Order: sequence, then C-alpha cells, then structure tokens
Amino acid sequence: MNATESNKSNLNPHVSVDCVIFGYDSNELKVLLIERKYAEQGNGSHHNPKLDIALPGNLVRDDEDLDTSAKRILKELTGLDNIYMEQFRAFGNPNRVRKEQDAEWLKTMRTDPQARVITIAYFALVKLEDYVPRPDSFARKSEWYPIKKLPKLAFDHNEILDQALQVLKFKVTHYPLGFELLPEKFSLGQLQRLYESILGDDLDKRNFRRKMKSLKLLIPLKEKQQGVAHKPAELYMFNMKVYEQLQQGILK
Amino acid sequence: MNATESNKSNLNPHVSVDCVIFGYDSNELKVLLIERKYAEQGNGSHHNPKLDIALPGNLVRDDEDLDTSAKRILKELTGLDNIYMEQFRAFGNPNRVRKEQDAEWLKTMRTDPQARVITIAYFALVKLEDYVPRPDSFARKSEWYPIKKLPKLAFDHNEILDQALQVLKFKVTHYPLGFELLPEKFSLGQLQRLYESILGDDLDKRNFRRKMKSLKLLIPLKEKQQGVAHKPAELYMFNMKVYEQLQQGILK
Repeated sequence: MNATESNKSNLNPHVSVDCVIFGYDSNELKVLLIERKYAEQGNGSHHNPKLDIALPGNLVRDDEDLDTSAKRILKELTGLDNIYMEQFRAFGNPNRVRKEQDAEWLKTMRTDPQARVITIAYFALVKLEDYVPRPDSFARKSEWYPIKKLPKLAFDHNEILDQALQVLKFKVTHYPLGFELLPEKFSLGQLQRLYESILGDDLDKRNFRRKMKSLKLLIPLKEKQQGVAHKPAELYMFNMKVYEQLQQGILK
Repeated sequence: MNATESNKSNLNPHVSVDCVIFGYDSNELKVLLIERKYAEQGNGSHHNPKLDIALPGNLVRDDEDLDTSAKRILKELTGLDNIYMEQFRAFGNPNRVRKEQDAEWLKTMRTDPQARVITIAYFALVKLEDYVPRPDSFARKSEWYPIKKLPKLAFDHNEILDQALQVLKFKVTHYPLGFELLPEKFSLGQLQRLYESILGDDLDKRNFRRKMKSLKLLIPLKEKQQGVAHKPAELYMFNMKVYEQLQQGILK
C-alpha cells in the first residue's frame, strides 16, 4: 500500500494544493513537473501520456493546514524537501478539473471524481543544482522542464504556471534578486542572464549595466573570471546593505 | 425566503470567501464588519452578540468562480458594490470554524456544520465616504470599525484581518499611495496622516518630508488651504509620472 492509498480516506475532496517550483540552472529557468500514472491501469490504456503532465499537486488532508499540505505533497511526488514555498493564489474555476482526460484520471484515483476542486497554489524559486527530483506516489516521472518549451498540462495547470511566472516577473522588477541563485562572485553577464531567463526577453546590455550601477547594488571586485573559454569578465558581489534596503521599500 | 435560504442548496460546504474592506475617512483607517444574526432564533438566545462580529463572508456557490463569489457575498451582506478586491491569501487551519459560539451559529445556518471550511480572503482599500454599507441577508448590522479599536471577531477573522493589514503596510512601504484616497490637492500633513493611519505609528515629520521630497513624487502648487481653522498649509499634487514609475519597479 503506498502513501496515496493509505491516506485516501481522510483527503478533503474539495481542496487541493499545487506547487510551482522554478529552478534556475545558471542559464535558463525551468519548472518541476510530474507525469501522473493511473492507479488502475485497466481502462486507462487509451490515454495520452503527453496530456498527463502536471504540476505536483494533490488533495489536502482534512486534519492538515495548507502549508503542511504543500510540503507533504511536494515531497511525496518529487522527493523534494526543505523548500520554502509561498502561497500565491487560489484557483477556483468551477470547470477546472473537467477536461476529458483529467476526469478519466480522477475516476481511477478518487471516491468522488465529480467534486469541484479549488486549489491553493504555492511557488518557489531555487538553484536547480541543489535539488534532484525523484518520482514517487502517483508520479511516474518528475523532471525539470524549460519554461520556454512547456507542454500542455493537466487541469488548469498552464494557467497556474503562467500566473506564478507573472508573480516572479513582478518580483524581479521590484526587488533585488540573485543572492540565492548566483555564485558569490559573478559577472554582469551572469546577472543579466538570470534576469533575462525570468523576464523571457533580451535586455539591452548598456541599459541594464547603467541601471544596476545607478542602484549601487554591486561591488566591483577587481578580479576576473578564471578558466573560461571566452575573454574573462570582471567579477562582482552584491552590496548586501543596498540589497536589503531595496527590499525594504521606498520609505526607508 | 431571503437570499441565503434560496441558495443554501448549491453552496459548497468546504470553501468560503471573506472580504477585508479597509476604508479611509481622511483621518483614520477603518474596516467594514458585520454582526451576524441567527437563522433560527429558538435556541440561540444565550449567545453573546459581541462575539458575533465578523468579516463579511460566506460559502461559495458550486457554480461560481472565486472573484464572483467575493463580489456577490460582499454585496449580499453589506450592499457594497463596484469595489475592486484583490485575493491575498487562503486560510486553512483545520480548527478555524470550531470555536463554541461559531459552531452554534453554523448549526443554525448550514446542513453540514461540522465540515472543515477553507476560506479565500480578499481585500480592498477605499475612500470611506464613497461607500455607505446597508446590512442584509444574515447581517444584522454592517459598520465601519476603527482599526485601533477592533472587537474580538468570529472564526479566525482577527488573524485574517491582521494579515490583510500586513499586506497593506507592505504596499504602503513599497509603492506610492494616496491618489485614490486623498483630495486632488492635499497638504503634507494630510499625506502623512494617511501613512500613519495605515502603519499604525507616528512618523517623524522632518524625515517623512525629506523622503517624499527625495522621491520627487509631489508637485508644490504655490496654493494654500482655504477655510481651515488652523494656519493654512501649502498644497501639493502627485507627479503622476513619478507615481507610475515607482509602481513599475527598480528596473525602469
């Protein structure tokens, strides 16, 4: 008996959580997705595995608060642990679980597959290399997908992912970013690539450098990159005092 | 048959919305609360009306998306319409509807009073004078309460209100504020009072003025207040270009 079966009885059929875990791999932005498997394979043989890719998510337990649910479900489906996730929005379109293949999958998984499900979505942004997903429970696979090449997802998960990306873009344009995602010493090129991978757009190199300079956010180190094939670039560190001030807002 | 009774049948017993409507009245910050009445008065005679004060909120209908629910419920309970509310957080403590008087009230209202209810909270900040609440449905009263003198509220509504206030404080410290809440021409004292009423703290007058000046957010009008009992103050307008730039973030 796996974790899903043993706890089916005390799952709340009306409320789920979904986790949008963004991972940055020094070059591009990715998101963690699972491929779901069918609990009873008998009549599911005609399903299309391409339509079974989803965000890690599941029903909450009736005795569990939402943050605890999110952590548990992410761990059960992907093995990922110790990720600080932020709740960002509830999704409640009355038809969000009614697409044909979703309904078929729900029939194999739940006692009340017709029930409307409202989902509470969480998100996080991590350094990809620190987390190696490992599928379990009803996840057949658990993999990082580039944001630029997203498949069609189950339920309303494309919409949830898109909204999470909007939140991330908003944060990038309002708050300093990079301390947890870049090496301690980094080049302006590395910093710009991080911004571009999130904003999904090329930034003008001169404008970007001028803006960063005017924020006084970076400390030039008078050191250069080592062991790179291209011309070594100057290295920088964040000025943490300015970094924190920018996080504290305009009244400071 | 009132609106509550006629629609009881298609309410989802597990999901509600609650609305935190902040109102600014040129002097202090208030919040809109209702006093709930009991559907069946027979055995509710020993309840304490002081413990029946709550945020306007109710179960969602099964065929309704969350934003529509929030608008409908606010209107049913308070008569308020045309308010743009933002979803800010879901609250899901498994015991959030289990306090004694709440359980008693739920018994008179719902077919499944034991069900766990997860609530999606919305908030808005409006100019108080533009909205006159009018109680209806299960609201016996609907009134503006000063944030500084809040009663003990039903369910976990004190926590929800507190979190909404944190969101509002965060916004005030990160984004320009006041365009919708102050008259077109205002004094620095009026602007400072607005900030103080939200932050719940006195601000140093000189620091506040210096900061506002450094943001280049205000245009001095070379005009003075008229018809005031005290010494008339200089009047200002917002520089909307700067106002919008500050809303757009640090990369602009």
